Amino acid sequence: MEENKPKVGIIGASGYAGVELIRLLLSHSAVEIGGISSVSFEGKAISEIYPNLYQIDDAILEDEEALIEQCDLIFTAVPHGVAEKIAIQCAEKGEKLIDLGADFRLDDEADYTQWYDGNYEAPELHAQAVYGLPELFRQEIVEKNFVGNPGCYPTASALALAPALQKYGALPVIIDAKSGVTGAGRGLSESSHFPNVNEAFSPYKVAAHRHTPEIEQTLSKMAGSSVYITFVPHLLPINRGILATCYVNLPEKVTVEEAYSWYEEAYKNEKFVRVLPLGDMANIKNVKYSNYCDISIHVDSRTQRLIVVSAIDNMVKGAAGQAIQNMNLLLGIVETTGLEMIPPAF
Amino acid sequence: MEENKPKVGIIGASGYAGVELIRLLLSHSAVEIGGISSVSFEGKAISEIYPNLYQIDDAILEDEEALIEQCDLIFTAVPHGVAEKIAIQCAEKGEKLIDLGADFRLDDEADYTQWYDGNYEAPELHAQAVYGLPELFRQEIVEKNFVGNPGCYPTASALALAPALQKYGALPVIIDAKSGVTGAGRGLSESSHFPNVNEAFSPYKVAAHRHTPEIEQTLSKMAGSSVYITFVPHLLPINRGILATCYVNLPEKVTVEEAYSWYEEAYKNEKFVRVLPLGDMANIKNVKYSNYCDISIHVDSRTQRLIVVSAIDNMVKGAAGQAIQNMNLLLGIVETTGLEMIPPAF
Amino acid sequence: MEENKPKVGIIGASGYAGVELIRLLLSHSAVEIGGISSVSFEGKAISEIYPNLYQIDDAILEDEEALIEQCDLIFTAVPHGVAEKIAIQCAEKGEKLIDLGADFRLDDEADYTQWYDGNYEAPELHAQAVYGLPELFRQEIVEKNFVGNPGCYPTASALALAPALQKYGALPVIIDAKSGVTGAGRGLSESSHFPNVNEAFSPYKVAAHRHTPEIEQTLSKMAGSSVYITFVPHLLPINRGILATCYVNLPEKVTVEEAYSWYEEAYKNEKFVRVLPLGDMANIKNVKYSNYCDISIHVDSRTQRLIVVSAIDNMVKGAAGQAIQNMNLLLGIVETTGLEMIPPAF
Amino acid sequence: MEENKPKVGIIGASGYAGVELIRLLLSHSAVEIGGISSVSFEGKAISEIYPNLYQIDDAILEDEEALIEQCDLIFTAVPHGVAEKIAIQCAEKGEKLIDLGADFRLDDEADYTQWYDGNYEAPELHAQAVYGLPELFRQEIVEKNFVGNPGCYPTASALALAPALQKYGALPVIIDAKSGVTGAGRGLSESSHFPNVNEAFSPYKVAAHRHTPEIEQTLSKMAGSSVYITFVPHLLPINRGILATCYVNLPEKVTVEEAYSWYEEAYKNEKFVRVLPLGDMANIKNVKYSNYCDISIHVDSRTQRLIVVSAIDNMVKGAAGQAIQNMNLLLGIVETTGLEMIPPAF
Repeated sequence: MEENKPKVGIIGASGYAGVELIRLLLSHSAVEIGGISSVSFEGKAISEIYPNLYQIDDAILEDEEALIEQCDLIFTAVPHGVAEKIAIQCAEKGEKLIDLGADFRLDDEADYTQWYDGNYEAPELHAQAVYGLPELFRQEIVEKNFVGNPGCYPTASALALAPALQKYGALPVIIDAKSGVTGAGRGLSESSHFPNVNEAFSPYKVAAHRHTPEIEQTLSKMAGSSVYITFVPHLLPINRGILATCYVNLPEKVTVEEAYSWYEEAYKNEKFVRVLPLGDMANIKNVKYSNYCDISIHVDSRTQRLIVVSAIDNMVKGAAGQAIQNMNLLLGIVETTGLEMIPPAF
Repeated sequence: MEENKPKVGIIGASGYAGVELIRLLLSHSAVEIGGISSVSFEGKAISEIYPNLYQIDDAILEDEEALIEQCDLIFTAVPHGVAEKIAIQCAEKGEKLIDLGADFRLDDEADYTQWYDGNYEAPELHAQAVYGLPELFRQEIVEKNFVGNPGCYPTASALALAPALQKYGALPVIIDAKSGVTGAGRGLSESSHFPNVNEAFSPYKVAAHRHTPEIEQTLSKMAGSSVYITFVPHLLPINRGILATCYVNLPEKVTVEEAYSWYEEAYKNEKFVRVLPLGDMANIKNVKYSNYCDISIHVDSRTQRLIVVSAIDNMVKGAAGQAIQNMNLLLGIVETTGLEMIPPAF
Repeated sequence: MEENKPKVGIIGASGYAGVELIRLLLSHSAVEIGGISSVSFEGKAISEIYPNLYQIDDAILEDEEALIEQCDLIFTAVPHGVAEKIAIQCAEKGEKLIDLGADFRLDDEADYTQWYDGNYEAPELHAQAVYGLPELFRQEIVEKNFVGNPGCYPTASALALAPALQKYGALPVIIDAKSGVTGAGRGLSESSHFPNVNEAFSPYKVAAHRHTPEIEQTLSKMAGSSVYITFVPHLLPINRGILATCYVNLPEKVTVEEAYSWYEEAYKNEKFVRVLPLGDMANIKNVKYSNYCDISIHVDSRTQRLIVVSAIDNMVKGAAGQAIQNMNLLLGIVETTGLEMIPPAF
Repeated sequence: MEENKPKVGIIGASGYAGVELIRLLLSHSAVEIGGISSVSFEGKAISEIYPNLYQIDDAILEDEEALIEQCDLIFTAVPHGVAEKIAIQCAEKGEKLIDLGADFRLDDEADYTQWYDGNYEAPELHAQAVYGLPELFRQEIVEKNFVGNPGCYPTASALALAPALQKYGALPVIIDAKSGVTGAGRGLSESSHFPNVNEAFSPYKVAAHRHTPEIEQTLSKMAGSSVYITFVPHLLPINRGILATCYVNLPEKVTVEEAYSWYEEAYKNEKFVRVLPLGDMANIKNVKYSNYCDISIHVDSRTQRLIVVSAIDNMVKGAAGQAIQNMNLLLGIVETTGLEMIPPAF
């Protein structure tokens, strides 16, 4: 192990986003894991909770204070409200922090209060924070110390819609999204009880999901004025993945080739966004276990609607992978480092 | 076996809709199966192809001519274009026919030609045919001899949208629909190869599915003027079921309670349509193996959109069950006979 | 509703076995449900917990005392130890009881104590109880008032092995069994958390499952002397079904045709046991949602081993369906009444 | 790209084993892919067939002659009988070959003839071939030019049973194995049609699977005398993974701790074999997408049987991963290179 690699710590390492971060960071060539912590399982080995890691990483879950002491950058994957407190400690020590929760995603505290029922206790930190969607905000990220890592649905939605809204400004948007069950995390619940999910399919939180203001915030920035969306998530009987089917009423007749050209142009230098050949359909299957976002472009010429379908792995591009992409930017590492995972065919 | 029960025959019995018809008709108290036929498996026992039927129904698949001879009513579950030819024979013998395919669904031959690439060879028969969605067209069905049994997506879509369009007339409609794999039938294909479907999710035939004109035809009748829809189907990694998430831009502010009241009123006498309590979400899980259509009503007050979610079992209310409902109407049997299946909890 | 139908009550109606009993009994022509109860959900409608039953059965979960008062026969689907207490009450009122748990399955209290860590508080009741596997113990069941309804694994195992052990007496037996997740019930647990089960497969309680003494008890009766088994259960990522692959070392060379003939003879009058044609393989798929037990017979002539594979639906023949079969016997109703469900093809 | 990396070619690259090889080799630091070929898809890009590879590997499938010309080592993933022909060409050019099929697995041509219905056309090549299970035959592999890469079931079975048979010599063995659907490959078939597999479970080729002689060959070598097994495979409704539950009658009383010590000792230097802590159970979930073989040890003291459960990813340790492990040995590369994939938690 090289002495001079930056050390990163994971607070909330026993949750799904945390353990996915561990898996990806163990293969990262330019940083090392300086420590992991968990309130629920302190003192236990991570491989006791996740036996897939047996003999690969048998590190012990420590106290979070120790982590902050010994690391150069902290990832937080904790309930909302908790990351902000940790960020205050990091700020004192000049440490960077990437929060995989919602504490640093919303610019407007009023949105946070309305949807998360909390307040910003250190507003000055939020001024130093940035929304970590590299494909849209890369320059801002490089300069900041605190990153609000985007939600899974907002990542899939924003990448699907940004080029169209950059072209036309605000337009009416409907996002019909579908997520695998890992999106709900490690905690037991009726909605992740196998016989309730398997051979089932249903929406949830119809037009009432907390990701709504986050999506609108990004889309409004892209459009240059306020975008209002209808957002309906559904639960898929699969482990991983999000597919967002996005409907946009276009202000003029557009061929699918024209629409395609906006996307091709927008993402031509983005390794992790694949604009699929015309005629192909985005499929969760093709991005699983990878940091890719696949996008397919369709036009319903009968109704003058643009239909954009995006697919990501909710745990990678929708969580841990994107967090590492942000970490690479913060630490001056080549952005794709540690994210070269090739999606398997099956 | 009572001598005087009507005899019904199934042409195309070895396909998925055919074998589901067999299963349901075997438990029907007021008709008996007079014969089954299959071009591909003539001479074989149905239980050789579907061993779930072993010792329950070991009937031999016959020639279709024999069936037409010996039965009082014919179900056809055959490729499009074939049912019309069989209907000509039935017409000569004064027999009734219910087609589970597309031959008798579209009023306008031009639609059929455009989407199915064929012509009506016996236009006079189509004049005697009716679209068999009992909850919307019960009176017309009773008087006819030929029934075009609705497609699975059109059933879920029309029941979800009829009350809103009856209220307001034509409105912009988007239908984001998801179907289990049995919708694609018994034939092997890349898109039903297990490793391609399992842990996968994708749209298909985006804004180009053949059910589009059928849905528009029904919705236009409900609205009293032409309705144009955007229809996007997706493939779910489950065996059975369709869930349609329907988005309607409302012309005025409406509370969810108001919208709910339209649906409650519209379906108050319909046993097979369950308008779920406000706050509940339609779920494929709750209608599997039954003839129910569950509908949940939601309003996105931020964008003035009505969101209606409907769920059916694609093989029952979306195919064989609805065909039996139509049969009951044609034969003067109590409409719910043979359709009392209770959806299992799991 | 006819006045003179016997009334049956379900104590523990909110669990998986309980709600499956409700579903099946609602379609039973010769009894009616006199009441349902649940400690956890008293006062709630069963359809609030299981929305598949909405508008079909909105009955309220009552106190169990009321049930005992108003019913002629009681089903108990409760934690072990509880049914015996209810049986004492039933005995006082001359009511019959069928327990879907383990309280009345084991003849030898020592076995119960060893495997369930409890005692028989009313040993005299156990003397009046019978093990309710109708295909093997029909005559004894008819004469008794208390039935220990067999476990799911023991049902599949005993039906698979009885004819061979009746032929040869005690032989070495290995049972490698696999069950769907509903076998673990409605309660949330790590082992039924969707991402832990889906795309996973593992044994559990290897050679240590409580069903071991129950299986050995039945097999020993069939053999006429003590049979010792190795029993290893596994968890399948499906909702329903058990498949038991049973290995028996034969004392002599036997052709598969000979072995087949023992099974054909043993089950020739048993509607619910289907000995499959030679060459076919028992499959959970073909018995789902039905009371059938499918059995396939194989011989490994290289090693002189008989291999018998049995498949049942764990919630029907392995629980609620078999309980109704026992109820029919106790009440003098035709044994197959209410159990005519045809397994669907998919 | 470094000039001096060995070039490897994949013949049969469009099948499941082939595309998994591509995925793993693209991340291998010490070799490069010199070409891929496919009879069925020659001239097409591999990413047209497997869109997961779009923009990652858009290489064109070539003619196999070109590959043999330009590569230093050839992988064959082709129907049996074909690899031997290619090996003849490789032998002439002094190239090494690793066959993922059955052509070089069986020492005794009579076994090949009996189970694969073919002959060895170049027996002298078979004398130069080795069975490529590195954990058991590492020294022999290093010295050879042709490797018969083990089957998936034989890998899981041999690793589970070798230590016990090395300890006691030949013993009676039963292997009850379960495999995910990718084991059946890319070709469409009834048994991989989604509605036939999903929510289903069944054995196949009971005591008649072609992997039987291969397993017996390895186990006999371990035991030092002929071992005869009963082998029963089953099809699991999952994409990847094999779990083998192995039953061995022990000749003496053994505690689980004793048995455990044999395995710990046997595999203490094997990175890819994880002997799980006592009490844990091998689970497909924990080895997916990795080259690990997890083994759990159990003893049924009531019947004096050892029960060993092993789990692998059938496409990695059971096919492409093990082939790369063999390649590393043949080319003098560190054995674990390119195989460091960490199994994900979900």
